[in-house]
Amino acid sequence: MKIGIVGGTGEIGEGMALRLSPKYDVIVGSREETKAIATCDACRASLEERDLACNLLGVTNQRAIDEADVVILAIPFRHVAPTLKTLTGFEDKIVISPVNPIERTTYFYYAPPPEGSAAMMIKGMLPESAIVCAAFNNVAANKWRALDEVLDYSVAVCCDDDGAKRTVMDLVNSVSSLRAYDAGPLHAASIVESLTPLLLNIARFNGMKDVGVRFV
Amino acid sequence: MKIGIVGGTGEIGEGMALRLSPKYDVIVGSREETKAIATCDACRASLEERDLACNLLGVTNQRAIDEADVVILAIPFRHVAPTLKTLTGFEDKIVISPVNPIERTTYFYYAPPPEGSAAMMIKGMLPESAIVCAAFNNVAANKWRALDEVLDYSVAVCCDDDGAKRTVMDLVNSVSSLRAYDAGPLHAASIVESLTPLLLNIARFNGMKDVGVRFV
Repeated sequence: MKIGIVGGTGEIGEGMALRLSPKYDVIVGSREETKAIATCDACRASLEERDLACNLLGVTNQRAIDEADVVILAIPFRHVAPTLKTLTGFEDKIVISPVNPIERTTYFYYAPPPEGSAAMMIKGMLPESAIVCAAFNNVAANKWRALDEVLDYSVAVCCDDDGAKRTVMDLVNSVSSLRAYDAGPLHAASIVESLTPLLLNIARFNGMKDVGVRFV
Repeated sequence: MKIGIVGGTGEIGEGMALRLSPKYDVIVGSREETKAIATCDACRASLEERDLACNLLGVTNQRAIDEADVVILAIPFRHVAPTLKTLTGFEDKIVISPVNPIERTTYFYYAPPPEGSAAMMIKGMLPESAIVCAAFNNVAANKWRALDEVLDYSVAVCCDDDGAKRTVMDLVNSVSSLRAYDAGPLHAASIVESLTPLLLNIARFNGMKDVGVRFV
Protein backbone atom coordinates (compact mmCIF):
# COMPACT_ATOMS: atom_id res chain seq x y z
CA MET A 1 0.00 0.00 0.00
CA LYS A 2 1.34 3.40 -1.01
CA ILE A 3 0.83 6.31 1.35
CA GLY A 4 1.08 9.88 0.06
CA ILE A 5 1.64 12.68 2.54
CA VAL A 6 0.48 16.13 1.41
CA GLY A 7 2.48 18.61 3.48
CA GLY A 8 5.06 15.93 4.15
CA THR A 9 7.82 18.42 4.97
CA GLY A 10 5.99 19.93 7.95
CA GLU A 11 6.59 18.73 11.47
CA ILE A 12 3.74 16.22 11.57
CA GLY A 13 4.20 15.20 7.94
CA GLU A 14 7.88 14.44 8.40
CA GLY A 15 7.15 12.59 11.64
CA MET A 16 4.52 10.48 9.90
CA ALA A 17 6.94 9.69 7.08
CA LEU A 18 9.48 8.53 9.67
CA ARG A 19 6.96 6.36 11.50
CA LEU A 20 5.30 4.87 8.39
CA SER A 21 8.18 4.34 5.97
CA PRO A 22 9.62 1.24 7.64
CA LYS A 23 6.36 -0.62 6.81
CA TYR A 24 4.84 1.18 3.82
CA ASP A 25 5.88 2.90 0.61
CA VAL A 26 5.71 6.53 1.65
CA ILE A 27 5.52 9.33 -0.89
CA VAL A 28 6.39 12.66 0.71
CA GLY A 29 4.74 15.61 -1.01
CA SER A 30 5.55 19.30 -0.77
CA ARG A 31 4.75 22.45 -2.73
CA GLU A 32 8.44 22.36 -3.70
CA GLU A 33 9.83 19.00 -4.79
CA THR A 34 13.35 19.96 -3.63
CA LYS A 35 12.05 20.38 -0.06
CA ALA A 36 10.39 16.96 -0.21
CA ILE A 37 13.63 15.39 -1.42
CA ALA A 38 15.57 17.07 1.40
CA THR A 39 13.06 15.79 3.98
CA CYS A 40 13.36 12.26 2.58
CA ASP A 41 17.16 12.46 2.79
CA ALA A 42 16.95 13.52 6.46
CA CYS A 43 14.41 10.79 7.25
CA ARG A 44 16.55 8.18 5.49
CA ALA A 45 19.54 9.15 7.64
CA SER A 46 17.49 8.88 10.87
CA LEU A 47 16.06 5.52 9.89
CA GLU A 48 19.34 4.01 8.69
CA GLU A 49 20.99 5.09 11.93
CA ARG A 50 18.45 2.88 13.71
CA ASP A 51 18.72 0.03 11.18
CA LEU A 52 15.12 0.61 10.15
CA ALA A 53 13.85 -0.07 6.64
CA CYS A 54 13.02 2.94 4.59
CA ASN A 55 10.79 3.39 1.53
CA LEU A 56 10.64 7.08 0.81
CA LEU A 57 10.14 9.19 -2.28
CA GLY A 58 10.14 13.01 -2.28
CA VAL A 59 7.83 14.60 -4.87
CA THR A 60 5.28 17.40 -5.34
CA ASN A 61 1.99 17.31 -3.42
CA GLN A 62 0.20 16.53 -6.69
CA ARG A 63 2.41 13.55 -7.46
CA ALA A 64 2.07 12.31 -3.86
CA ILE A 65 -1.68 12.12 -4.48
CA ASP A 66 -1.37 10.61 -7.95
CA GLU A 67 0.90 7.76 -6.80
CA ALA A 68 -0.80 6.93 -3.51
CA ASP A 69 -3.63 4.63 -2.44
CA VAL A 70 -4.03 6.49 0.84
CA VAL A 71 -3.42 10.25 1.12
CA ILE A 72 -2.72 11.95 4.46
CA LEU A 73 -3.41 15.71 4.62
CA ALA A 74 -0.65 16.74 7.06
CA ILE A 75 -1.32 20.46 6.82
CA PRO A 76 -2.55 23.10 9.28
CA PHE A 77 -6.27 23.86 9.08
CA ARG A 78 -5.76 27.36 7.67
CA HIS A 79 -3.87 25.92 4.68
CA VAL A 80 -6.31 23.10 3.92
CA ALA A 81 -8.82 24.91 1.70
CA PRO A 82 -6.23 26.89 -0.34
CA THR A 83 -4.09 23.76 -0.78
CA LEU A 84 -6.95 21.50 -1.84
CA LYS A 85 -8.02 24.06 -4.47
CA THR A 86 -4.67 23.57 -6.24
CA LEU A 87 -4.78 19.75 -6.24
CA THR A 88 -6.68 17.08 -8.19
CA GLY A 89 -6.82 13.31 -8.52
CA PHE A 90 -8.46 12.36 -5.22
CA GLU A 91 -10.99 10.10 -6.98
CA ASP A 92 -11.34 6.67 -5.29
CA LYS A 93 -8.55 7.41 -2.79
CA ILE A 94 -8.75 7.11 0.97
CA VAL A 95 -7.99 10.58 2.37
CA ILE A 96 -6.95 10.82 6.03
CA SER A 97 -7.56 14.10 7.87
CA PRO A 98 -5.55 14.61 11.07
CA VAL A 99 -6.54 18.29 10.82
CA ASN A 100 -7.86 20.24 13.84
CA PRO A 101 -9.36 23.73 13.49
CA ILE A 102 -8.12 25.38 16.67
CA GLU A 103 -7.91 28.98 17.82
CA ARG A 104 -6.17 30.44 20.85
CA THR A 105 -6.76 33.34 23.20
CA THR A 106 -5.64 32.75 26.79
CA TYR A 107 -6.69 29.14 26.17
CA PHE A 108 -7.21 26.89 23.16
CA TYR A 109 -10.67 26.34 21.74
CA TYR A 110 -12.32 24.49 18.89
CA ALA A 111 -13.14 26.73 15.94
CA PRO A 112 -14.76 24.53 13.27
CA PRO A 113 -15.74 25.76 9.81
CA PRO A 114 -19.44 26.06 8.84
CA GLU A 115 -19.42 22.40 7.73
CA GLY A 116 -19.05 21.41 11.41
CA SER A 117 -15.53 19.98 11.30
CA ALA A 118 -12.37 20.06 9.20
CA ALA A 119 -13.18 16.50 8.10
CA MET A 120 -16.64 17.47 6.79
CA MET A 121 -15.22 20.55 5.06
CA ILE A 122 -12.59 18.39 3.35
CA LYS A 123 -15.22 15.87 2.29
CA GLY A 124 -17.20 18.71 0.71
CA MET A 125 -14.16 19.89 -1.28
CA LEU A 126 -13.20 16.50 -2.72
CA PRO A 127 -14.83 14.42 -5.46
CA GLU A 128 -17.62 12.15 -4.25
CA SER A 129 -15.62 8.96 -4.77
CA ALA A 130 -12.89 10.08 -2.35
CA ILE A 131 -13.35 8.47 1.07
CA VAL A 132 -12.44 10.81 3.91
CA CYS A 133 -11.39 9.39 7.30
CA ALA A 134 -10.53 11.44 10.40
CA ALA A 135 -7.60 9.86 12.23
CA PHE A 136 -4.44 10.76 14.15
CA ASN A 137 -6.08 14.05 15.30
CA ASN A 138 -5.07 13.76 18.95
CA VAL A 139 -1.42 12.70 18.67
CA ALA A 140 0.83 15.56 19.74
CA ALA A 141 2.78 17.07 16.82
CA ASN A 142 6.14 16.80 18.59
CA LYS A 143 5.74 13.11 19.31
CA TRP A 144 5.69 11.99 15.69
CA ARG A 145 9.31 12.90 15.03
CA ALA A 146 10.67 11.59 18.33
CA LEU A 147 11.45 8.21 16.80
CA ASP A 148 12.92 6.76 19.99
CA GLU A 149 9.74 7.44 21.95
CA VAL A 150 6.87 4.98 21.99
CA LEU A 151 3.54 6.45 20.87
CA ASP A 152 1.31 4.83 23.47
CA TYR A 153 -2.00 6.55 22.71
CA SER A 154 -5.53 5.85 21.59
CA VAL A 155 -6.57 7.05 18.13
CA ALA A 156 -10.22 7.67 17.27
CA VAL A 157 -11.11 6.96 13.62
CA CYS A 158 -14.25 8.36 11.96
CA CYS A 159 -15.35 7.31 8.48
CA ASP A 160 -18.53 6.52 6.55
CA ASP A 161 -17.05 3.55 4.66
CA ASP A 162 -16.41 0.39 6.66
CA GLY A 163 -13.68 -0.99 4.38
CA ALA A 164 -11.73 2.25 4.32
CA LYS A 165 -12.15 2.60 8.08
CA ARG A 166 -10.68 -0.88 8.58
CA THR A 167 -7.73 0.00 6.30
CA VAL A 168 -7.06 3.20 8.28
CA MET A 169 -7.43 1.44 11.64
CA ASP A 170 -4.89 -1.18 10.52
CA LEU A 171 -2.57 1.65 9.45
CA VAL A 172 -2.96 3.29 12.87
CA ASN A 173 -2.30 0.02 14.68
CA SER A 174 0.91 -0.49 12.68
CA VAL A 175 2.49 2.67 14.16
CA SER A 176 4.43 2.23 17.42
CA SER A 177 1.91 1.43 20.19
CA LEU A 178 -0.99 3.46 18.81
CA ARG A 179 -4.36 1.75 19.21
CA ALA A 180 -7.19 2.54 16.79
CA TYR A 181 -10.81 2.85 17.92
CA ASP A 182 -13.85 3.09 15.67
CA ALA A 183 -15.40 6.44 16.64
CA GLY A 184 -18.34 6.30 14.24
CA PRO A 185 -19.25 8.13 11.03
CA LEU A 186 -17.42 11.15 9.63
CA HIS A 187 -20.09 13.46 11.07
CA ALA A 188 -18.78 12.50 14.53
CA ALA A 189 -15.29 13.80 13.70
CA SER A 190 -16.02 17.21 15.27
CA ILE A 191 -15.82 15.72 18.76
CA VAL A 192 -12.55 14.00 17.87
CA GLU A 193 -11.04 17.21 16.51
CA SER A 194 -12.29 19.18 19.54
CA LEU A 195 -10.40 16.87 21.90
CA THR A 196 -7.12 18.36 20.69
CA PRO A 197 -7.63 21.89 22.11
CA LEU A 198 -8.63 20.19 25.40
CA LEU A 199 -5.32 18.29 25.41
CA LEU A 200 -3.46 21.54 24.63
CA ASN A 201 -5.23 23.25 27.56
CA ILE A 202 -4.39 20.34 29.88
CA ALA A 203 -0.73 20.70 28.88
CA ARG A 204 -0.78 24.47 29.22
CA PHE A 205 -2.49 24.72 32.60
CA ASN A 206 -0.77 21.78 34.30
CA GLY A 207 2.84 22.31 33.26
CA MET A 208 2.81 19.26 31.01
CA LYS A 209 4.17 18.67 27.50
CA ASP A 210 2.70 16.89 24.50
CA VAL A 211 -0.35 15.50 26.27
CA GLY A 212 -2.07 12.57 24.59
CA VAL A 213 -5.12 10.47 25.36
CA ARG A 214 -6.02 6.90 26.22
CA PHE A 215 -9.55 5.54 26.16
CA VAL A 216 -9.83 3.05 29.02
CA MET B 1 -16.88 20.89 53.87
CA LYS B 2 -20.52 20.10 53.15
CA ILE B 3 -21.44 18.83 49.70
CA GLY B 4 -25.01 19.07 48.48
CA ILE B 5 -26.11 16.88 45.58
CA VAL B 6 -29.08 18.17 43.57
CA GLY B 7 -30.60 15.11 41.91
CA GLY B 8 -28.90 12.91 44.47
CA THR B 9 -31.27 10.00 43.94
CA GLY B 10 -30.37 9.53 40.26
CA GLU B 11 -27.75 7.03 39.16
CA ILE B 12 -24.82 9.47 39.12
CA GLY B 13 -26.04 11.39 42.16
CA GLU B 14 -26.35 8.25 44.28
CA GLY B 15 -22.94 7.05 43.07
CA MET B 16 -21.38 10.39 43.98
CA ALA B 17 -22.98 10.23 47.44
CA LEU B 18 -21.47 6.77 47.91
CA ARG B 19 -18.02 7.88 46.78
CA LEU B 20 -17.95 11.19 48.68
CA SER B 21 -19.68 10.41 51.98
CA PRO B 22 -16.78 8.55 53.58
CA LYS B 23 -14.75 11.80 53.49
CA TYR B 24 -17.30 14.64 53.40
CA ASP B 25 -20.67 15.57 54.85
CA VAL B 26 -22.94 14.76 51.95
CA ILE B 27 -26.45 16.16 51.70
CA VAL B 28 -28.52 14.22 49.20
CA GLY B 29 -31.25 16.29 47.60
CA SER B 30 -34.30 15.18 45.65
CA ARG B 31 -37.60 16.67 44.54
CA GLU B 32 -39.14 14.35 47.10
CA GLU B 33 -37.49 14.19 50.49
CA THR B 34 -38.71 10.60 51.08
CA LYS B 35 -36.78 9.47 48.01
CA ALA B 36 -33.63 11.19 49.26
CA ILE B 37 -34.01 9.50 52.64
CA ALA B 38 -34.45 6.10 50.94
CA THR B 39 -31.32 6.67 48.84
CA CYS B 40 -29.34 7.58 51.96
CA ASP B 41 -30.54 4.42 53.71
CA ALA B 42 -29.42 2.31 50.75
CA CYS B 43 -26.05 4.09 50.59
CA ARG B 44 -25.56 3.68 54.33
CA ALA B 45 -26.10 -0.07 54.04
CA SER B 46 -23.58 -0.35 51.17
CA LEU B 47 -20.98 1.68 53.03
CA GLU B 48 -21.42 -0.06 56.39
CA GLU B 49 -21.09 -3.42 54.66
CA ARG B 50 -17.63 -2.27 53.58
CA ASP B 51 -16.76 -0.71 56.97
CA LEU B 52 -16.66 2.73 55.34
CA ALA B 53 -17.57 5.89 57.21
CA CYS B 54 -20.81 7.52 56.18
CA ASN B 55 -22.08 11.08 56.60
CA LEU B 56 -25.34 11.30 54.73
CA LEU B 57 -28.49 13.34 55.05
CA GLY B 58 -31.51 13.01 52.76
CA VAL B 59 -33.42 16.24 52.15
CA THR B 60 -35.10 18.29 49.41
CA ASN B 61 -33.04 19.74 46.58
CA GLN B 62 -33.59 23.20 48.08
CA ARG B 63 -32.30 22.19 51.50
CA ALA B 64 -29.33 20.41 49.88
CA ILE B 65 -28.35 23.77 48.41
CA ASP B 66 -29.07 25.76 51.58
CA GLU B 67 -26.90 23.54 53.78
CA ALA B 68 -23.98 22.99 51.39
CA ASP B 69 -20.73 24.79 50.65
CA VAL B 70 -20.36 22.98 47.34
CA VAL B 71 -23.39 21.98 45.24
CA ILE B 72 -23.19 19.27 42.57
CA LEU B 73 -25.87 19.37 39.85
CA ALA B 74 -26.26 15.63 39.21
CA ILE B 75 -29.14 15.97 36.77
CA PRO B 76 -29.56 15.20 33.05
CA PHE B 77 -29.14 18.22 30.77
CA ARG B 78 -32.82 18.33 29.78
CA HIS B 79 -33.81 18.76 33.44
CA VAL B 80 -31.23 21.41 34.32
CA ALA B 81 -33.07 24.57 33.27
CA PRO B 82 -36.50 23.57 34.65
CA THR B 83 -34.92 22.40 37.92
CA LEU B 84 -32.79 25.52 38.42
CA LYS B 85 -35.90 27.72 37.91
CA THR B 86 -37.44 26.16 41.02
CA LEU B 87 -34.39 26.59 43.26
CA THR B 88 -32.70 29.53 45.04
CA GLY B 89 -29.85 30.18 47.43
CA PHE B 90 -26.86 29.60 45.16
CA GLU B 91 -25.22 32.87 46.25
CA ASP B 92 -21.50 32.44 47.11
CA LYS B 93 -21.62 28.66 46.60
CA ILE B 94 -19.35 26.59 44.41
CA VAL B 95 -21.58 24.83 41.89
CA ILE B 96 -20.19 21.79 40.08
CA SER B 97 -21.63 20.86 36.68
CA PRO B 98 -20.96 17.30 35.50
CA VAL B 99 -23.71 17.90 32.92
CA ASN B 100 -23.27 16.95 29.25
CA PRO B 101 -25.75 18.05 26.57
CA ILE B 102 -25.77 14.99 24.31
CA GLU B 103 -28.10 13.81 21.58
CA ARG B 104 -28.21 10.48 19.78
CA THR B 105 -29.08 9.27 16.32
CA THR B 106 -27.08 6.28 15.10
CA TYR B 107 -24.22 7.80 17.09
CA PHE B 108 -23.84 10.24 19.97
CA TYR B 109 -23.09 13.89 19.35
CA TYR B 110 -22.63 17.08 21.31
CA ALA B 111 -25.71 19.32 21.31
CA PRO B 112 -24.86 22.39 23.39
CA PRO B 113 -27.36 25.14 24.23
CA PRO B 114 -26.97 28.63 22.68
CA GLU B 115 -24.66 29.61 25.58
CA GLY B 116 -22.05 27.19 24.13
CA SER B 117 -22.05 24.59 26.91
CA ALA B 118 -24.18 23.33 29.77
CA ALA B 119 -21.69 24.96 32.15
CA MET B 120 -22.11 28.41 30.55
CA MET B 121 -25.89 28.05 30.49
CA ILE B 122 -25.88 27.18 34.20
CA LYS B 123 -23.62 30.15 34.97
CA GLY B 124 -26.11 32.41 33.18
CA MET B 125 -29.02 31.07 35.26
CA LEU B 126 -27.37 31.47 38.68
CA PRO B 127 -26.67 34.61 40.72
CA GLU B 128 -23.38 36.31 39.89
CA SER B 129 -21.71 35.33 43.17
CA ALA B 130 -22.17 31.60 42.47
CA ILE B 131 -18.96 30.06 41.12
CA VAL B 132 -19.61 27.43 38.48
CA CYS B 133 -17.02 24.69 37.83
CA ALA B 134 -17.28 21.96 35.20
CA ALA B 135 -15.95 18.66 36.59
CA PHE B 136 -16.62 14.92 36.54
CA ASN B 137 -18.12 15.25 33.03
CA ASN B 138 -16.30 12.27 31.53
CA VAL B 139 -16.70 9.64 34.25
CA ALA B 140 -19.12 6.94 33.06
CA ALA B 141 -22.44 7.00 34.95
CA ASN B 142 -22.33 3.30 35.80
CA LYS B 143 -18.89 3.53 37.38
CA TRP B 144 -19.89 5.84 40.21
CA ARG B 145 -22.08 3.28 41.96
CA ALA B 146 -19.72 0.32 41.47
CA LEU B 147 -18.08 0.95 44.84
CA ASP B 148 -15.71 -2.00 44.54
CA GLU B 149 -14.24 -0.71 41.28
CA VAL B 150 -11.38 1.76 41.24
CA LEU B 151 -12.11 4.95 39.28
CA ASP B 152 -8.78 5.32 37.51
CA TYR B 153 -9.52 8.24 35.19
CA SER B 154 -8.47 11.78 34.43
CA VAL B 155 -10.93 14.57 35.26
CA ALA B 156 -10.77 17.93 33.49
CA VAL B 157 -11.85 20.89 35.65
CA CYS B 158 -12.88 24.26 34.16
CA CYS B 159 -13.53 27.31 36.31
CA ASP B 160 -12.95 31.08 36.28
CA ASP B 161 -12.05 31.30 39.99
CA ASP B 162 -8.67 29.89 41.02
CA GLY B 163 -9.62 29.21 44.64
CA ALA B 164 -12.81 27.39 43.76
CA LYS B 165 -10.99 25.46 41.05
CA ARG B 166 -8.41 24.30 43.63
CA THR B 167 -11.21 23.23 46.00
CA VAL B 168 -12.91 21.23 43.26
CA MET B 169 -9.62 19.66 42.09
CA ASP B 170 -8.93 18.56 45.69
CA LEU B 171 -12.42 17.11 45.84
CA VAL B 172 -11.81 15.21 42.58
CA ASN B 173 -8.48 13.90 43.80
CA SER B 174 -10.11 12.60 47.00
CA VAL B 175 -12.33 10.17 45.04
CA SER B 176 -10.84 6.71 44.38
CA SER B 177 -7.98 7.12 41.86
CA LEU B 178 -9.43 10.07 39.96
CA ARG B 179 -6.84 12.66 38.95
CA ALA B 180 -7.87 16.28 38.45
CA TYR B 181 -6.42 18.46 35.68
CA ASP B 182 -6.86 22.20 35.30
CA ALA B 183 -8.54 22.53 31.89
CA GLY B 184 -8.78 26.33 31.88
CA PRO B 185 -11.65 28.80 32.22
CA LEU B 186 -15.35 27.92 32.21
CA HIS B 187 -15.60 28.96 28.56
CA ALA B 188 -13.42 25.93 27.74
CA ALA B 189 -15.97 23.54 29.30
CA SER B 190 -17.62 22.86 25.93
CA ILE B 191 -14.66 20.75 24.81
CA VAL B 192 -14.76 18.83 28.11
CA GLU B 193 -18.49 18.16 27.77
CA SER B 194 -18.09 17.15 24.11
CA LEU B 195 -15.58 14.45 25.08
CA THR B 196 -18.40 12.43 26.64
CA PRO B 197 -20.29 11.65 23.39
CA LEU B 198 -16.91 10.63 21.90
CA LEU B 199 -16.41 8.16 24.78
CA LEU B 200 -19.97 6.87 24.28
CA ASN B 201 -19.24 6.36 20.56
CA ILE B 202 -15.97 4.57 21.35
CA ALA B 203 -17.90 2.23 23.66
CA ARG B 204 -20.73 1.72 21.16
CA PHE B 205 -18.61 1.01 18.09
CA ASN B 206 -15.90 -1.11 19.73
CA GLY B 207 -17.99 -3.39 21.94
CA MET B 208 -16.73 -1.73 25.12
CA LYS B 209 -18.52 -0.65 28.29
CA ASP B 210 -18.22 2.49 30.40
CA VAL B 211 -15.25 3.96 28.55
CA GLY B 212 -13.29 6.62 30.42
CA VAL B 213 -10.29 8.76 29.61
CA ARG B 214 -6.73 9.29 30.76
CA PHE B 215 -4.61 12.26 29.77
CA VAL B 216 -1.04 11.00 29.39
